[in-house]
Amino acid sequence: MTYSVAVSGASGYAGGEILRLLADHPDFEVRTVTAHSNAGQPLVAVQPHLRTFTHLTLQETTAETLAGHDVVFLALPHGASGAIAAQLDPETLVIDCGADHRLERPDEWAAFYGGEHHGAWSYGVPELPRLSGTQRDRLTGSRRIAAPGCNASTVALSLAPGIRAGVIEDRDLVSVLAVGPSGAGKSLKAHLLAGEILGSANPYSVGGVHRHIPEITQALRWAGAARPTISFTPVIVPMSRGILATSTARIVPGTDAATVRAAWDDAYAGERFVQVLPAGQFPRTADVLGANTALMGVAVDEAAGRVVVVTAVDNLVKGTAGAAVQSANIALGLAESTGLPVNGVAP
Amino acid sequence: MTYSVAVSGASGYAGGEILRLLADHPDFEVRTVTAHSNAGQPLVAVQPHLRTFTHLTLQETTAETLAGHDVVFLALPHGASGAIAAQLDPETLVIDCGADHRLERPDEWAAFYGGEHHGAWSYGVPELPRLSGTQRDRLTGSRRIAAPGCNASTVALSLAPGIRAGVIEDRDLVSVLAVGPSGAGKSLKAHLLAGEILGSANPYSVGGVHRHIPEITQALRWAGAARPTISFTPVIVPMSRGILATSTARIVPGTDAATVRAAWDDAYAGERFVQVLPAGQFPRTADVLGANTALMGVAVDEAAGRVVVVTAVDNLVKGTAGAAVQSANIALGLAESTGLPVNGVAP
Amino acid sequence: MTYSVAVSGASGYAGGEILRLLADHPDFEVRTVTAHSNAGQPLVAVQPHLRTFTHLTLQETTAETLAGHDVVFLALPHGASGAIAAQLDPETLVIDCGADHRLERPDEWAAFYGGEHHGAWSYGVPELPRLSGTQRDRLTGSRRIAAPGCNASTVALSLAPGIRAGVIEDRDLVSVLAVGPSGAGKSLKAHLLAGEILGSANPYSVGGVHRHIPEITQALRWAGAARPTISFTPVIVPMSRGILATSTARIVPGTDAATVRAAWDDAYAGERFVQVLPAGQFPRTADVLGANTALMGVAVDEAAGRVVVVTAVDNLVKGTAGAAVQSANIALGLAESTGLPVNGVAP
Amino acid sequence: MTYSVAVSGASGYAGGEILRLLADHPDFEVRTVTAHSNAGQPLVAVQPHLRTFTHLTLQETTAETLAGHDVVFLALPHGASGAIAAQLDPETLVIDCGADHRLERPDEWAAFYGGEHHGAWSYGVPELPRLSGTQRDRLTGSRRIAAPGCNASTVALSLAPGIRAGVIEDRDLVSVLAVGPSGAGKSLKAHLLAGEILGSANPYSVGGVHRHIPEITQALRWAGAARPTISFTPVIVPMSRGILATSTARIVPGTDAATVRAAWDDAYAGERFVQVLPAGQFPRTADVLGANTALMGVAVDEAAGRVVVVTAVDNLVKGTAGAAVQSANIALGLAESTGLPVNGVAP
Repeated sequence: MTYSVAVSGASGYAGGEILRLLADHPDFEVRTVTAHSNAGQPLVAVQPHLRTFTHLTLQETTAETLAGHDVVFLALPHGASGAIAAQLDPETLVIDCGADHRLERPDEWAAFYGGEHHGAWSYGVPELPRLSGTQRDRLTGSRRIAAPGCNASTVALSLAPGIRAGVIEDRDLVSVLAVGPSGAGKSLKAHLLAGEILGSANPYSVGGVHRHIPEITQALRWAGAARPTISFTPVIVPMSRGILATSTARIVPGTDAATVRAAWDDAYAGERFVQVLPAGQFPRTADVLGANTALMGVAVDEAAGRVVVVTAVDNLVKGTAGAAVQSANIALGLAESTGLPVNGVAP
Repeated sequence: MTYSVAVSGASGYAGGEILRLLADHPDFEVRTVTAHSNAGQPLVAVQPHLRTFTHLTLQETTAETLAGHDVVFLALPHGASGAIAAQLDPETLVIDCGADHRLERPDEWAAFYGGEHHGAWSYGVPELPRLSGTQRDRLTGSRRIAAPGCNASTVALSLAPGIRAGVIEDRDLVSVLAVGPSGAGKSLKAHLLAGEILGSANPYSVGGVHRHIPEITQALRWAGAARPTISFTPVIVPMSRGILATSTARIVPGTDAATVRAAWDDAYAGERFVQVLPAGQFPRTADVLGANTALMGVAVDEAAGRVVVVTAVDNLVKGTAGAAVQSANIALGLAESTGLPVNGVAP
Repeated sequence: MTYSVAVSGASGYAGGEILRLLADHPDFEVRTVTAHSNAGQPLVAVQPHLRTFTHLTLQETTAETLAGHDVVFLALPHGASGAIAAQLDPETLVIDCGADHRLERPDEWAAFYGGEHHGAWSYGVPELPRLSGTQRDRLTGSRRIAAPGCNASTVALSLAPGIRAGVIEDRDLVSVLAVGPSGAGKSLKAHLLAGEILGSANPYSVGGVHRHIPEITQALRWAGAARPTISFTPVIVPMSRGILATSTARIVPGTDAATVRAAWDDAYAGERFVQVLPAGQFPRTADVLGANTALMGVAVDEAAGRVVVVTAVDNLVKGTAGAAVQSANIALGLAESTGLPVNGVAP
Repeated sequence: MTYSVAVSGASGYAGGEILRLLADHPDFEVRTVTAHSNAGQPLVAVQPHLRTFTHLTLQETTAETLAGHDVVFLALPHGASGAIAAQLDPETLVIDCGADHRLERPDEWAAFYGGEHHGAWSYGVPELPRLSGTQRDRLTGSRRIAAPGCNASTVALSLAPGIRAGVIEDRDLVSVLAVGPSGAGKSLKAHLLAGEILGSANPYSVGGVHRHIPEITQALRWAGAARPTISFTPVIVPMSRGILATSTARIVPGTDAATVRAAWDDAYAGERFVQVLPAGQFPRTADVLGANTALMGVAVDEAAGRVVVVTAVDNLVKGTAGAAVQSANIALGLAESTGLPVNGVAP
């Protein structure tokens, strides 16, 4: 069967990427696209790269325009999706690309976001190792899915295998990310101007204040961590898309290098969209540009007593829109990889 | 008086930057520039941005062409400077921008470089805190100076204050750097092609194998560390110059945030070229582009129990050529800041 | 049926892009990939973004390894394909991505390339308007196809409609292109290093010497130009892929603006891969990144008496590999758009 | 003597660059910096690269705060400077970096800007060839100077020598520019976001509508053109600064190549800040980054019957702030090159 689809926030980066992926998806038909200030315009006036959608016009984002579809993707500013989702049919598959439904703990929500906590939906990172099985098991049949934060899911995928296997400690985790500015959305903010970003590396949310931190520690607790702590620093670098996360952790004393490596190899054996490279190889973000692939390299630094995991993802695909579509495939019982590219666009 | 100067390796990035700085230096007069494959060409054919040196022609790099100057800057491939330096007058001030004379310990030289160890010269990072005083004290009157590795000096400046003040532990140090490709020199290597680097973040020398690691731990021992270990990962990002180093360390338990911060504020109080930003502010590499300035932001992440130090330098200036000129100024008894820009070229 | 395919030059940018497209092509099966210095390595060691081809190993590029396939793509250095092609079965479909078989006139070959002229094959730009019909007609059933030069085909598509319709003069044509460095291939040349290209705009082959000039004028003669002359200047800019060609021509006196515009609208009406935007809109290269699409904006500058045509293509897709696959589809009687993306990857 | 200086618009790109240059100027002392929404903040909070101005606080931009200085630089939005300038002492040297006082003809002002025309001030491009002498002659002793549009002055400098010498025709001029986004200022506009510009080449103001066109033709008329027409297209490319202008013109029939070239060599012989490269060499924008230098390459394309002039400038220096300071030096009778760098920051 063909599922009818609505995409809200279709004028932004996440919404545009969902549409780019759905254009090649055989089971989904995009019927409705909505926006805020751009409502009334042809979609292609705002997203001129989406040549296959020249027939669509942006409508207002309301519960009414989104109602009556089998699947609704919400790509709205944080805080905006809770109210709309509440008005949609419980049988409609709703995937929220915002942060509103990612965190289980009200105290963490309060500390990092504030305002009303709407509760947690099924977290849309299928391959994420959990103490038992993977996150995939929680997605089958779900009708409410929270697509992950792009930085958070990249780091969670990088460290969870070692936590679950008991080969790394859950304290003194460190992750530093080189990220493209599209992860911050198409927002009119001075620090996102090209003049500020071209030719420069710019840190932000330094020192334990980034909102993706509780999302990471939540995922690591799912993998078995007791009280995980992580020093997390994102750095905007001059590339339109991509995350290169360098994550390191202290190896549990007495664990040999082969055992450490095996934790990652085992966790992702057979996964199409999370691939661990052979020893000595490390990924570049260009390798996964446009693809739903997380590429990972793992090194054991014996002198430092730490494992180093370098992971490349496209923040808009595996980090957001690809995770959303992959999760939707699972929820609906479709083949998980339907419509999702695995090869990157390089150079 | 005016000092006569020769610059070898003048066709490369480090050599070109030394010349750019010397063009505005009132006490140095560049008489000789040398190169390898480009010998015989006008300097400006290879370095077209150096409009004030249209009168210079590249000569062969030999001890003979370099002899007879008051100051000789060596910007040669690693391994090439030892033999040439040995033939220069002991009273000539020689500054080596290569790695040959940076490491004191033969075992570390053997482990990371191999080949003959030429011994250590005065290390050219004046502001580096040592257990007693600063590295500046070792540069006064010196006639043999080793300019630092750009990544190494950036990380050493970032962490040494906390080590010296006893507020951070010397194990589980972690540093991840976003670096521009000019730090790797003008080498014809496939991974340095623009097609490989544009739009991508590319890690290299991952897992404890980068040659700057022993240079960092040597500097931290000078500051008082007993057995420092560091996980060090550089990531090439698409900007021509710049290093943004994010370094983190475990805070010694029981140390309050103000005491932590004070270690950095105190270490660099009064320094012109190493400046610590007010709390809550962090530097961008564009802020120091073309300048001999290291800008530093310090955050205390209490949840993670770690301090985070973000430092921006221009790898070719404070990281190499500026460090060389600043050290030469000190060695010769000139005002330390002569000829050295402190304002960056932004945006 | 499924056609067996060999790709030579598979370690380069053009070869890699052919493989990326073929990965999603239902009628082609890649059996053999060949290279020169990388022969013996796994393909994915050199092209780590091609995750669906982990089973392939690079073989030596010889007539023997390429023989026995239904389709052979040659992505070799200029001058290398003639000899190999001569040894392949005349019934094999051979598509040459090099320049060897693009030019009809021996005198132009001699003037811009020199060496032996191998004669012209069917030129692989299907939509190119000719005095009668389009270039597509010459591709049906062909077994020897010359994929175009990326700059040349972009400019030819930009100007041929006006020539054929008789609304622009064929003298004083001017085209200036912003191009990404991947168009120059993965060559170890100093001017292609990231350090040279990041943060800079660099012209090359200025003043009538670029090898794509005779390819452009040949195409314009096919469209009806008597003695076309063009001032052609490419400028390398810091983006990995993409061509933005700004082409201008003198409007034939007395032609009104609507008639001028109609020449382009008519030429490409119904084309999937060459699209003319509505008046007042102009394309960006990001809009076609990764896609086989040429997007075009046309403006009439009445004060200057000239039409301005701005065309965006991805040099590796519509400019090279996509043109090759599209032409192969036509030659074999497959649906022309099979396996070819039309939506770009933006931002 | 030391001149007291006020800089308005000090939080923007042009204002920041004026300050960067003045920091190294021995005869100017910056006493006052003003801004609009950032008034009240320390200058260095908004311009963190200007480390020598940590003592300055941004004040409100009013005639009162600007009064009482010897020199006032206005770097305000277009339309804002006329009213303020009218309130400043006629003996104060006022340099306006906006467009308000560039155009002599009210009809051109009305056509391209609209609103009140404030009349033309001395145009701040000293080297610009005029039928008799250079523009420099109009700047000596002036107290009201209009700094040029960055694109306009680059193109005017490129073409005026050929016009004045009578070697090129003044019709069918074409200029296409690769420009960095800093030329558009620090404006919160969607098309200036990093996500839109990274990895892409984006044209704007295509088809004869760009506001710099009348400024170019005005300058060409000063050089002797009767009715100049130019097709002018700027393309934003992913570099923070820089303009690479490719300008072409039809050579007057019968003019030999040496005569053509001599027009440019003669026009700029002896100029420090406008330099013509030897035949066969062309500039890159990196060669002039941060410098007050226009580098120019000239080619004669005999087949096309056109001259091609490729000129690189830094839009913020020679294109704006450097032009302003250089003009101020002339107006006040200082050495023209005081405080102005001629070497670029490359790579």
